[in-house]
Parts: sequence; structure tokens; C-alpha cells
Amino acid sequence: MTMLITGATIIDGLAETPLQGQAILIEGKRIKAIGKADELLVADDILTIDATGKYVIPGLMNANVHLLCDIRPETLIRYEGRYEELIAESAQIALKNGQTTVFDTWGPRRHLMAARDAIDAGQMIGSRIYCAGNVIGFDGPYSPDFGATMAQMLSPNFVNRINSTWVENSGRHLMWMTPDEVAKELRTYIAKGIDFIKYAANEHGGQSLGAFISFSERVQRAIVDEAHRAGITAQSHSMSVEGLHMSIAAGCDLVTHCNITGPREIPDETLDYMVKQGCGAVLFPWSDAALKWMRENVDDGTWTTVKATDANARNLVKAGARILLANDGAVMASEMLADPMVQKSWMGAPEEISLGRLATGHFVWFEAMEEKGMAPMEMLRAATRNIAIAYKKDADLGTLEEGKIADLLILDKNPLESAKNYRAINKVVKDGADIDIAALPLTPLLTRPLPEPLPEEAEYKHFAHTGQRFPLCACSAMMGH
Amino acid sequence: MTMLITGATIIDGLAETPLQGQAILIEGKRIKAIGKADELLVADDILTIDATGKYVIPGLMNANVHLLCDIRPETLIRYEGRYEELIAESAQIALKNGQTTVFDTWGPRRHLMAARDAIDAGQMIGSRIYCAGNVIGFDGPYSPDFGATMAQMLSPNFVNRINSTWVENSGRHLMWMTPDEVAKELRTYIAKGIDFIKYAANEHGGQSLGAFISFSERVQRAIVDEAHRAGITAQSHSMSVEGLHMSIAAGCDLVTHCNITGPREIPDETLDYMVKQGCGAVLFPWSDAALKWMRENVDDGTWTTVKATDANARNLVKAGARILLANDGAVMASEMLADPMVQKSWMGAPEEISLGRLATGHFVWFEAMEEKGMAPMEMLRAATRNIAIAYKKDADLGTLEEGKIADLLILDKNPLESAKNYRAINKVVKDGADIDIAALPLTPLLTRPLPEPLPEEAEYKHFAHTGQRFPLCACSAMMGH
Amino acid sequence: MTMLITGATIIDGLAETPLQGQAILIEGKRIKAIGKADELLVADDILTIDATGKYVIPGLMNANVHLLCDIRPETLIRYEGRYEELIAESAQIALKNGQTTVFDTWGPRRHLMAARDAIDAGQMIGSRIYCAGNVIGFDGPYSPDFGATMAQMLSPNFVNRINSTWVENSGRHLMWMTPDEVAKELRTYIAKGIDFIKYAANEHGGQSLGAFISFSERVQRAIVDEAHRAGITAQSHSMSVEGLHMSIAAGCDLVTHCNITGPREIPDETLDYMVKQGCGAVLFPWSDAALKWMRENVDDGTWTTVKATDANARNLVKAGARILLANDGAVMASEMLADPMVQKSWMGAPEEISLGRLATGHFVWFEAMEEKGMAPMEMLRAATRNIAIAYKKDADLGTLEEGKIADLLILDKNPLESAKNYRAINKVVKDGADIDIAALPLTPLLTRPLPEPLPEEAEYKHFAHTGQRFPLCACSAMMGH
Amino acid sequence: MTMLITGATIIDGLAETPLQGQAILIEGKRIKAIGKADELLVADDILTIDATGKYVIPGLMNANVHLLCDIRPETLIRYEGRYEELIAESAQIALKNGQTTVFDTWGPRRHLMAARDAIDAGQMIGSRIYCAGNVIGFDGPYSPDFGATMAQMLSPNFVNRINSTWVENSGRHLMWMTPDEVAKELRTYIAKGIDFIKYAANEHGGQSLGAFISFSERVQRAIVDEAHRAGITAQSHSMSVEGLHMSIAAGCDLVTHCNITGPREIPDETLDYMVKQGCGAVLFPWSDAALKWMRENVDDGTWTTVKATDANARNLVKAGARILLANDGAVMASEMLADPMVQKSWMGAPEEISLGRLATGHFVWFEAMEEKGMAPMEMLRAATRNIAIAYKKDADLGTLEEGKIADLLILDKNPLESAKNYRAINKVVKDGADIDIAALPLTPLLTRPLPEPLPEEAEYKHFAHTGQRFPLCACSAMMGH
Repeated sequence: MTMLITGATIIDGLAETPLQGQAILIEGKRIKAIGKADELLVADDILTIDATGKYVIPGLMNANVHLLCDIRPETLIRYEGRYEELIAESAQIALKNGQTTVFDTWGPRRHLMAARDAIDAGQMIGSRIYCAGNVIGFDGPYSPDFGATMAQMLSPNFVNRINSTWVENSGRHLMWMTPDEVAKELRTYIAKGIDFIKYAANEHGGQSLGAFISFSERVQRAIVDEAHRAGITAQSHSMSVEGLHMSIAAGCDLVTHCNITGPREIPDETLDYMVKQGCGAVLFPWSDAALKWMRENVDDGTWTTVKATDANARNLVKAGARILLANDGAVMASEMLADPMVQKSWMGAPEEISLGRLATGHFVWFEAMEEKGMAPMEMLRAATRNIAIAYKKDADLGTLEEGKIADLLILDKNPLESAKNYRAINKVVKDGADIDIAALPLTPLLTRPLPEPLPEEAEYKHFAHTGQRFPLCACSAMMGH
Repeated sequence: MTMLITGATIIDGLAETPLQGQAILIEGKRIKAIGKADELLVADDILTIDATGKYVIPGLMNANVHLLCDIRPETLIRYEGRYEELIAESAQIALKNGQTTVFDTWGPRRHLMAARDAIDAGQMIGSRIYCAGNVIGFDGPYSPDFGATMAQMLSPNFVNRINSTWVENSGRHLMWMTPDEVAKELRTYIAKGIDFIKYAANEHGGQSLGAFISFSERVQRAIVDEAHRAGITAQSHSMSVEGLHMSIAAGCDLVTHCNITGPREIPDETLDYMVKQGCGAVLFPWSDAALKWMRENVDDGTWTTVKATDANARNLVKAGARILLANDGAVMASEMLADPMVQKSWMGAPEEISLGRLATGHFVWFEAMEEKGMAPMEMLRAATRNIAIAYKKDADLGTLEEGKIADLLILDKNPLESAKNYRAINKVVKDGADIDIAALPLTPLLTRPLPEPLPEEAEYKHFAHTGQRFPLCACSAMMGH
Repeated sequence: MTMLITGATIIDGLAETPLQGQAILIEGKRIKAIGKADELLVADDILTIDATGKYVIPGLMNANVHLLCDIRPETLIRYEGRYEELIAESAQIALKNGQTTVFDTWGPRRHLMAARDAIDAGQMIGSRIYCAGNVIGFDGPYSPDFGATMAQMLSPNFVNRINSTWVENSGRHLMWMTPDEVAKELRTYIAKGIDFIKYAANEHGGQSLGAFISFSERVQRAIVDEAHRAGITAQSHSMSVEGLHMSIAAGCDLVTHCNITGPREIPDETLDYMVKQGCGAVLFPWSDAALKWMRENVDDGTWTTVKATDANARNLVKAGARILLANDGAVMASEMLADPMVQKSWMGAPEEISLGRLATGHFVWFEAMEEKGMAPMEMLRAATRNIAIAYKKDADLGTLEEGKIADLLILDKNPLESAKNYRAINKVVKDGADIDIAALPLTPLLTRPLPEPLPEEAEYKHFAHTGQRFPLCACSAMMGH
Repeated sequence: MTMLITGATIIDGLAETPLQGQAILIEGKRIKAIGKADELLVADDILTIDATGKYVIPGLMNANVHLLCDIRPETLIRYEGRYEELIAESAQIALKNGQTTVFDTWGPRRHLMAARDAIDAGQMIGSRIYCAGNVIGFDGPYSPDFGATMAQMLSPNFVNRINSTWVENSGRHLMWMTPDEVAKELRTYIAKGIDFIKYAANEHGGQSLGAFISFSERVQRAIVDEAHRAGITAQSHSMSVEGLHMSIAAGCDLVTHCNITGPREIPDETLDYMVKQGCGAVLFPWSDAALKWMRENVDDGTWTTVKATDANARNLVKAGARILLANDGAVMASEMLADPMVQKSWMGAPEEISLGRLATGHFVWFEAMEEKGMAPMEMLRAATRNIAIAYKKDADLGTLEEGKIADLLILDKNPLESAKNYRAINKVVKDGADIDIAALPLTPLLTRPLPEPLPEEAEYKHFAHTGQRFPLCACSAMMGH
């Protein structure tokens, strides 16, 4: 198949200014040439797309998503045996919204790899997936790292099956080990076929908001070295100023949510160190509207953390760090969105300010970073070229150049003029193919509408209410009734 | 179809002594005649069963089972939309073990009725089912009456769907109402097609071990009257001496687990009252072996209750109450039986002493009551004729008589000689049909074997252990770490 | 001592209109005469109080207080061995605010009786106390009836000591018993010297918001009969429509918080029954301001209950029930009032709308009932004569009459003009003595100011915050982190 | 005052073999001379002690005790304002049992220092105390590091007061800081007058059994450097193989419970490193009897940890580490020892196998290490000279030498013959004074007997039992009732 896109302003992710009067010729999966339309040698059976007045940009990348993030028992029980389908749904939602490549940094390895391979083989449609499997050092979904209380109401058989599926030999037991022992376990895990590794510099679940450190400096170095020896990149889950410092020192290629450092800001010394080492900075920014929501809904302690996170984002931009777009993007199930408790929480905040939605969070990222004063071309690179470089995929991805894989978006509006123009997706081309984005996701599962109420539901009369009772009697109230 | 059973000792449930030298002639679903084989006029296409040396008894009945008892999220999520199949599995396990009729006293009404009707129509195989739906006054599976904490980790959408399915308009909100209001709600509920009603004399879930009373005496009377007005029987869930007394006073046809009255024994006055009113006494007996297990595994307070329960059983026999076999019989899922915590608890006690297993608990009932000195013929009637009378089904069921439905068992050994001979089932005939019990259950769901371990399970290394850590440090230990 | 009060408008609680131009002569503890000042024969050493322009009313009574309500471990440990002092503090706060007689309906019997007797003997100052000890059927402070979770972090030794102190032989174990057995235990309890009994018609702690019933109708009757046989009054703790009905049927002299009946209103039949039996109606009214607070702060289910409670109060007035002022009055410790969680809850609502404060809640009661249209003279009687009659103390208390005990208030403003004028207390006379109310409470314990912060407190730096962390990561958020 | 001890075998802690035929002359607080009795110049007013047949050893030291360890609300509320008295009780119990010097490694700084200073000034009797105050990086008693759930049932006012008292500026907030910032806070804390510092290499409370690391390597180094700059020693709380390695690398003078490293043994590399650096090894050994108790009472996961702890102890001896006696010694309150739950746990294990009792645990230490093959003279040094050296107190303490402080024990039996002979204490001399050990503790508080039962306790009838109810009904059981 050959495709010719003409008439568009081309923002190739490389040049400082957009190209005008150029066309893009695609043959098979790759870009054959970029040049004047009439100078390009084209085949007969060519699909010509007239994109006059439109904008072509590289396919967006997302440095941190979770294609199977919904680990609630309802989902993992209901869809047991069908986890690839859930991953496919997510990958299709991502693709529909312009994300041609996503990096899954935590999930069930075997199922992610199966979806990845099916997509690569053209057997399944969806974003191109690179995946890490488990975060090295994390225990499974029903453990203290995620939801320990869940384990108490599920059978040990099921709990073990799920935790094993997520963790295999890469979990918390590594925390007891020496550098050599950890490296050996990691070697085994890498050999299963993952694309990169992510390890816990700081704890995930626990009681320190992430301040505890999971691995000593020398173990962290051993982990990164082992990844590099295997030819793949390494990144860390960092949650504190010292966790970030250790990650850079260990040689990480990038650091996830590096702007989250508890209540304190990253000191200049560490900012400089990060820039000097060329370490990729995965940022989770708060938009102005999100900051407003937080200020009104959280306590002072949390607000301190939110403010530090925001200051870090601004400071990383100023310091010239290699910034990468990412958002922990995940699909939320319909019944979660219908839950009044969720609706009242940050998770249920309006979509236009929510960073974490797989379908729309990356648009929020652009809008938030624009507010923070990041230059338009830098933002575009944060979502394309920077990610490709940090993950060492820049030979194939990240820019519109001859010989690279033909992943691109045609936008109706100019993304360099306003961040919200990224939402104006006209067409998504991936691997040289024009994607029928209207049809995605092909089979909604988590995103299908809520089931019709049963006849019994109309009749069910609640006893009174399910909340806390108000204290009729002072004695009871004093005891917390 | 016509069937002739010859050569057996017939224990018809009516006569004080077994019949010898008689045959049973069955035409269609009913017993055509009982008499000397050569005097019975039989058709040509007759199936003759030579039961020489064997024993024929009426099909066993069970006054209290729960065909869908496993309300754990794992089960209710995994099998959502297939609850009839779970009920069918239970009904087939019951039938395989000689229970031709079971009374389901708590479960999801619509699904139980669907299974009941399918069996009655010959579209499904299984025990004959009579069902009550919800216990009037109980809230649903994910409420304080059963598992309130579960509700916290499931979506409100699912919780509401499940609770509605079990409760409809028959739940806890009735506790706020006057007698007339309760009667009106009950009328609506009965009109849905249930076979009998069961109401809460005492609470189910709660913090009083059942001592709290759910409905005032006049409300209880209104409930029973409403059932009788509709032509169906009424029973109560009773857990205390006063709860039992109120149930009898309200006019109950039978009382469930009437021998459970907390730490105190039923006083003579109430025993006499029960006998005088002809109220059916559903008994849950402890066998000697079970008592031994309890003595070794429970605290002194619980033991007091166990002893009272046992004394009540003996005293009810002595007082001449109309005793009914029942056991709260339920099927346990394979993954529950594999759970080490369950294995250590009473639920996981060896099958031979467990009363609550649907497959075998009724055999344990016979063995336990034999130990308590109940006469063999009385035990047989407790499992047949007494139940039929208490539930007002004795026109069709409960004895081997001309004109009655042909539900019967052929045993290899004499049940009047030893209670354990009830286990020697040679053949089950229900509705005049010879059941292929070896094939049951047709499609194991809860009872299918555990799934094969995943490859990941072999690799998963536990962090250390999942129990409480031992107190290395006194300060922590003092705080309950 | 002889006292003459002249010049005041006298509202004696008996006459439909106030008396003018009369004086009250007090000799010792009792009213010697009421008449024209110059016609009264008075001794030489007389204290004459010129109350011209002021108003004299009978000392206020409170039908339901808890003089030791603060059962938090902090209080019960800190003041162990000094519970009488806590009771004295409460009795003095009550007296200071015009409550010359209070009925303590739940508390530690031995300590309450000791304080009562010390006050009666003139060894201690405070309101006259009548006390019931435990509510028959309630377990202790660290039990499911109040604070079961507390028990887990206290030594069994202390838990048992506290629960025993409150309960003795009058607790939950009675729920397992027959009428005769309960009566026998009650006989023992009454013999300890309590002034009246209160029993649980409905549960206190539990999961039914009070709907469960604690005792069968015949046990309730046995309880009331036993109290009457001992010459004391009986009342119940009622929380539901049926609980109230049963209490009246059992012969209760009064019913506590009879307007609380869950989400449903008391039906006319029961209102009429209550009036016909002359049963005292202890009311907890919501003021308009309190209703507004509730509407803004509670969920719909709770609001339904609040509305029913309010409707019941209005309907009881309309039906002509014998209404009694009461408020579950209790003293709140300074550190509770300083707790941000308490401040946000109903317990921390502004004093002017809080019914439950011992110091001021009775004023709120008057203001709320005025809003509900209760006649001024009826309100005064609800706080004086009605209580005396219901508790059978009207031979000595409740009105200003010759021969009665000289308990009275001198108000600066007319209470019949506006309910808020009850707050204008000029003088409190109890047992014929002019109380130095400015000095009360003599030794503040719970109400003493918070201790000065330690030097260490200025230095202590919180880790971050103590609330829930906001969901940085969707996966954690889904699991309730 | 001058004292002369004659006739004893002297084990001075220095010489490889005991001294015979020597006397010890003490003047004031110090040893004046050791030599032949008749060659020593002695004053007239001399106290001569004939210790013929007895054994004199240096006063025992304990490298790790907690003089106020009982942070249960019952204790901290009951004794608020009297914490010095609790510390005095502990210091007297320690002294009574031969511990003339103890190192308190975690407790309320101000109160510990007050007790320390009072003892040093001769105003209070007790062991010589050196104290660290808080463990740098730990939050307070009612925080996730100890008992977070406690905080929920105490007033924020009290919680803050207690946490501040223990933590001041040395808590968890340091985990967010850079090396310089931590050093600055530590400088402030040291200036308050503590004797040495202890910091968290690994977490205390949490969900990783201690595997999480609290501070990065460079922060740990900054902490140790700051202590050394202030002229005091530094030690860490270590719980994992890597935590231990980092502690040694940071320059710690000693490491607490260094043999606890989760389920894995310390590798040879780290053992060698420890020996090479001369780092003191505080050991918590399991005796054979304790190991037996553990094997019978804990799960397999815990057992793995126990075994590793034991192997580490043996390997540290073999490797020639500088071993220090310590036991986390604490006094247990009478009501804790009476708690059935405690009695069933390791805390309530028989005194003769319990390491953690302040009164007797050090004797258990000797007995356990003897079983592990440690040489008698090495054990004696582990309890005396080694501790003095590790804590840099060897100029004054740890051996019997001229000029050193006169702390010594006279034993009836030879401690070099059998470890249990340490229990044969005949006399304790501290600061040259013969201690009246029979009188200690002077005022028992935690160790006073349980109070006499109240009269009410005899009457209190439990409802039934306080444990879990046994599953009468399978449905409830399935839900965890």
C-alpha cells in the first residue's frame, strides 16, 4: 500500500519550524519520502489524501500507561481468561485518541505481551505496545502494594493466581537480596520478553506516601546495569527527593512521575544532575483547574504535596530537562464512574481536568504544560521524539523522517497555536494504515454502558441508609458510632 | 412408563413395621399399588426391578437447604447470569444422595423458582424444589445481615443488583412497619409465586449472636396469618428461647433450627407448648464426633452454646416434638475447601462430622440423632412424612402409598438397623423415574476441580509470609503489631 | 433558715395563669406558704429577697441526662477512682443552669448513687439526682452496645472492670432468659438502691439503627411489673414504631426519646394508645436551625429519619401526650470540642442548636418546642410538673406549693413570653438554699481548659498529613488507597 | 567511703584468666587499686567485704533497652505527668538484676534525660542511663510506626502531645529531605543533650517486615558524620541484609539487632565488612527452648525468618564480630501479663525463654549464646567491655581496672563455668556503693499487682462470649462471620 498526504503543514518533530508545501509519501509501513508532492515518485495504486489546511504531526506516544489497570475483583473475576481483550480495548481507545505508541509500565506480563504481539502481527488493532510487566519489587494486586484487604475476601487460590500473574519472580522478595542475587532474578524476568524494565526506587503501597526506599543504591545500580546488559532501557518508580537522586545515580534512562517528591521540591542540585545525565523526566502536571479542584477538596498536608509537585514541573521545564508526556492512563469501568463515592473523589473529577484517563488525559497534559509556559514545539517533542529517544526507539519512531515508521496524525487545527488543538484529530495513521477510529473500541467491555436494572431493583427498599448514623446519643457519638 | 419393584423390604413411612413380600407398582409419576407382586395387574412394557434383599423407603426430604448459598463475590461475579445452573448443580447433588424433595429456605427467588419450574416441567433434572425466596426481614448478601464489609469493595451498582435479587420488597425495612403494613408487603411478595414463607423471629447478622428480635409479637402473628390466608405454610428463623416462644405463639407451622437458643436451654414450658401446638421442629444436631471437635476448638462461651444446642435436641426428642430433618445443606466450592483458613475452621471439618454439606449432611443427621437415642422409625419419618405434614405436602409426598408420587430409594442395607445404612443408596426413583445418579451433577461448576496452576504460580515467590509478624520488639508487640 | 421572696410574678406550675402580688415563704427545705407578703408570719432571722419585676418558677427538671457520659478511654483511665468527681462536675453544671433535679437514665450505678447520696446529705453541691444505673439489657461501655472496637486496645482487665461497673447483673445476658428469670435478676438489681428502672425495648448498639427488639412482649411486661412491685417507675429505650407500641403495652410510666422511630412516623393508633395510657413522652426535638444543619450535612436516608422524628414531636403535641423535657444532656470534654473531626460533626454543631449539652440543651429544648407551637404553660409543665408526675415524685417536686420542696428559679424575664427567657436565670434556689451559681462547677475536670502545649509540640513536624492520600495512581485509587 | 572486697575470684574483663588472691579497693566512686589485700593502703573507716569463694565481675551493661516501652493508652494516660517514675522503676529493676549501665535506644527524650540526670546526681537510684531519645526517622507512638489505629480512638490533642514528646524534630519528615537538611535537624536534636544517636536504616512500622529503607546511603552517611562531629556514637536500626550493609558503609559504631535480616542470612561479604570496620554487633539470640516454642507456634514463613536470625547469630560469632549483649529489655505491666491473648503469644512465653524482659532477658541472652558455642570470656566481654568500647565509654566503664568507675557484681557462682551462674547475684556495687537490691524497685507502678476485683466484677455476667461465633449457617460462614 502506498499513501500520499498532500497540502498539510508538516510538523515533523525535528525541525524547529513546520514544513510548508511538502507531501509525505508512505510505502508499506514506513515513510518513503517527504518532499514536494510533484517531485515524489509514486506508484499507481496510491491513496492520496488531500490535507490542505490541516496539520500533520508524528503519532503521539505516551511514556506511561496501564492498559489493564482495573484490578478490582469485579473486573478480574468477571473477565478471567479474557485479559487480552481488556488490554485490546485499552489499546484501541488509546489509538483512537492519537496515541500510536504506548509504554505500559505495570501490568500482567504474559497478557500484555500477547496483546503486543497480536498487534505487531496485524492480528489485532491497537496502539503499538511496549511493556515492562511488573514493576520490579512490587508485590501483586492483592498485596500490601495495592489492595491487601481485598485478599481477605477472596479465596487464597484466586489471590495467588492473580498475584502470580502480575509478579512472577519479580516481587517484594527481592528486597531481602544482595545486588548479585537481584540481578540474577532480573535476568530471568527479562528473558521472558519484556521491552524495558521499571523498578521501585520508592515503595508503592505503604504508610509513608512513598518515602520509603525499596532498594539500596548498589542494588539499584545492579538492576539498571542488568537491563542495559540485556539491551533494554531502565526506569524507576520514584516518589521522593532522595529516591529521584538515587535513580539518576543508578543510571536510569528515565524516571516516572519524577515531579512527585512528597511535600518538598526537588533541589537545584538534583535538577542539574538529572539534566546533565540526560535522564528522561516523566511528568504528571496539574492544570490550573485541577489545582483549583485540589485546593477546595484536600487537606492542608495534601495541598503541600500538590504544590510541590506543581513547582517541580515548572522547575524541570526551566532547568531544561528532557520532558516526557505520560499520565498513568487507564480506562475506568462504567460502574466505577457511576459510583457516588468515586464521583466525589479526584478519580471522578470532570474529564476535562483529569490527567489519568487513557482517552483524554494526554490532551489534559498538553493543556496543563501550556499553562506552565512550556514552548509549543517542546511539548510536541515531549510527546514524540523525547519519548522515542528516552526509550531508545528513535531509530524507528518519534519523528516524521524518511525511513521511519509511518505513524502520524492529521489534525484539523494547529497544535503549535493552542494545546487544545491536539484534540482536533482528523485522521490517525499507524504503520502506514489509515485507522477507522470511529469504530474503536471494537468490543467495549469496561466501557460498555451499565446493564439495564433488573426488575427486582425497582422493588428493593433500602432499610434506611447505608452511611453513618447521626449521633442521637452523645455516649455513642463519643465512641465513634 | 410402568415400573414394578419386587422382593424388597418396604418401609413405607406409615406402618410401624416394614412390609415383607410386597411389591410396588408405579405408573407414570405415581404409585399405582402396593401388594403381592403376582396380584398386581401390570402392563406389558413394564420395567421390573428385582430388589430382593434390599430396602425401599420413601424419597428423603430435607426441610432446610440453600441451593445457592455461596454468596462470595468470586461466585456471584463469576457466575452472574448463570445462577440457575448453580442451583441445578445443587439440586442434582441433593438428588444423587437420595433427597428427592428439598425445601430451600433462603435464596434468590426468581432463580430458584425458575429452576423449580424447569425441574417440575421435566426440562431439568434435580430434586423437587419448594422455595421461600428471602427470609422476610433479612437484607441482602452484601448487607449487615450477611457480609457488610464485602459491600465496601464492590461497586454500588453490583451490590444493589445482588441485594435486590435476593430481597426485593421483603427486607429489613419491614422492621419499621406496623402489622398491617408488613402484611401488605408480604402479600405482594407471596404473589410472586413462592411455596412457603420464612420470616426472621430473631436477627441473622448482628452482634447479639441472634438474641435480638426482629418483629414484635403482633407483627409475627400478622406475617403467619398472611401466609395462611394465601394457603401456604409459615416458619421462622429462631435463635433464642423467647424467639422460639414467640414463633409458636404466632402460629408457625415449623421453626427452623429451633434447638439453637444461645447459651440457655429451652424451658419445659416452651417444649410443651411446641408439642401441644403441633409445631414442626427443625433440628440441627451435633454428633458425638462433632461435639468432640467443638470442645477442642472453641472457647468456653461458644461451648456453652454448643452444649445447650445439644441438650435441646435431646429434650425435643424426649418431649415428643414433631422433628424434621434439615441441615442448612449447601455446596462448598472447591477453592473454599482448599483454603487453609477454612480447613482449620468448623466449615472445613471432616465431611463425616459436618452437618452442613448438601451431599452428605443428611446422613450425618441420622447418625447424630441415632446417638441421641431417637427411634429408627422416628428418624425415617423425620426425613419423610413429618416434613410432608409440616409443609402440608402430605397429600402427595412423604410416604409410600397408593396414589402418592413415586419418590423412593432402594437401599442395600436396612436403615432401621443402623443410621449409617442410609448411605447405602442403590437406586433413586423420583416421579416414577429411575435416576442415573452416577451422572450427577451433569455440569459441575462449584464442585469442579481447582483449575490447573498457571505457569506463573510456580515462579511467584512470596515476600515472607502473610500472617502476623512475630513481635521482635516489645514496643510494637504492645501495640498489637 | 427562712427565706421570703417578694414582688415577683409567680408561675407555680399548677395555675393556668401566673400569680401576682404574692410572696413565697420558705422554711428549711420546704415551702412554708405562698401568700401576700404582709400576711405571712415570718421569723426574725429571715432572708428577704426582693424579686420585683422578676419571675419565679419551679426548679427545672430534666427527665433524661447522663452525668457520666464520656466513656472514652482517655476519660475513664485518667479519672479512674474519681468518677464521683466527674458526676459532681456535671451535677453542678446542671444546677448552675437551673436544673434542680435531674434523672440520670444510664451510668455507673455505684458512683451515681454515691454522688446522689452525698448531695442529699448536703456533703456535696449539685442537682438532685435520681438514677437508674444501667439500661436493663445493655452491655457495658466497651461492648457492641457502645464501643466494641475500644475493647481491642485496652487490657481485658480494664475492659472487664469498666463493663462490670456499668452493667453488674443487668446486661445483655438477660436477652437469653425467660420472663421469670429476667424478673429475678431485675429484683437483685433494684435492691441495690436505684430510683427507677429503664430497659431496652430496642437495641442500642448494633446495625439496625435501633430497629431490633431486645425483649419479647412478655419479658417487657415482666420487667415493668417487677419495677412496680418494688414501688419504682419503669421506662424504656425505644427506637421504633413497634418498640414504642410494646413499651406502652408493657405498662411503662414513660418512654425515652419516643419520637425517634426510624424513617417512619408513629401511627395515630399508637399516639392514641400512649395518651390513653397516660404514658410520659420524653421528646428530643429538632429546632428549625438544627433541621437546617441536618439537611445540609446528612444523606437522604438520615434526613428521612430526621423528618420523621420532627413530625412525631409535632404529632405528640397535637395528640395531647404528657410531654417531658429531656435531652440526653452530657458534658463534653475540652479536648473533644477541640477535635476537628468532632467540630465537623453534629456533636460539634454550635451550642445554640445543640440539644445534647447538659449546660444549655434544655434551653434549646424550649426554643425548639416553641417553634413547634407548644403552649408556653405546657412547656413549663413539661419541664417540671409533668416530669414529677411521670416519675411519681409529685408529692415533693414539680410545682410551687405549700409543703413542697423549695426548688425554684428567679428569672429576669418572663418565660411565658418567650422560650429564650429561660436563659435569664437570676437565682437558683434548691432545698431552700440560695445557690452560689457563679462558683459552679467547683472543680472543673472535663471542662477545664486544654493543657498548655508542651515545648516539644512546637517542634514536632508532621510527616505530611494524616488523612487519606489523594490517588496519584489510578490503580491504587481503584483499590481504595 | 572506702570499700575493700577480698577473697574473691576477680574476672576483670580484661585478662584472659581470672585473678586469684587479689582484693579490690574502692574509694568514692572509683576503683583505687587491685592487688593483694595486705599490700593495699586502706583508710580507717573502711567497709570490708569478705567475698571468699565468690566471683567479682564488672557491672553488666545492656546495649539496648527501653525504659519506657509500654506506650499503650492505658499506661500513657494513667501515668501522664509521671513518666520519670516509670523510667525509675525500670532503671531500678535493671540495677537489681546486675545491669549497672543501660543504653536506652528509644524513648521520650526529656523524661529519660531527667531520670538520667537525677540518677547521676544521686537523687534517684537506678542503673546508669545513656539515652538516644527517638530513633531518627521514626514517628511517634500513635503513628504508623507503632500504633496508628490507636490514634483513631484518642483525642487529637492527646495524640499530638504524645507523639511530640517522643519525636520532636527527629521524625519521619526527615525522609523527604536532602543530606544537608537532615544533618541540620539532627544538629538541633543532638544539642538537646542526648548521649548517642540511633537512626532508622530500615523502617519500623509498615508492611514490609522491615525491608524498606528509610534513608538513602548519602543521608545515612550525613547522619553518622553529624553524630561523630558532635562527639557521640551512632547506630542504626537495621532489619535487612542491605540495611545492614548500608549501616556499616555509613560508618555506624554499632548496629542494633544486626542478626535480624528477614528470611535471608547475612552473606559472608557483609560479615567480613562488619568485622573489618570494627562495627559493634548487637545480637538478639534465640535459645534452643525459644526456637522450639517458635517452631510450634509460628507459620512457615515466620519460621524461615527465625532460622535466618539464628544462623546469623552463629555466623557472627564465627566471623569474630564485636558482639554486644542487648535484648530490647522492657518491663511488662501486670495487666498485660494477665491478658489471655498475650499469654498465648510470644510476649507471654515463659520468662525463662523470653529475651525481652528487662529483669531477666539478659540472663537468657547468656544462656542462649552459650548454646551457640560462644566462649565464656567472650560472653562476659559482650556484656561489659565490648559495649563500653562500642559506645566509647571504655575510659570509665566496662572493666575492673584502677581508676575506672566502681561498678561490679559479686556472684555466688562462677559465670565462666555456666551461663546460668549470672543469675546468682550476691551483691551489686554501683559507683562504689553497695546497692540494697532487695528494696528495688522502690515504688512499683507497672509491676505492682493487679488491683483487687471490684464488687461489680463478681456479678457481671457475660452475654455469651467475646470471640468469633462458630458458623451455624454456611452462608454466614462463607462471608467470614
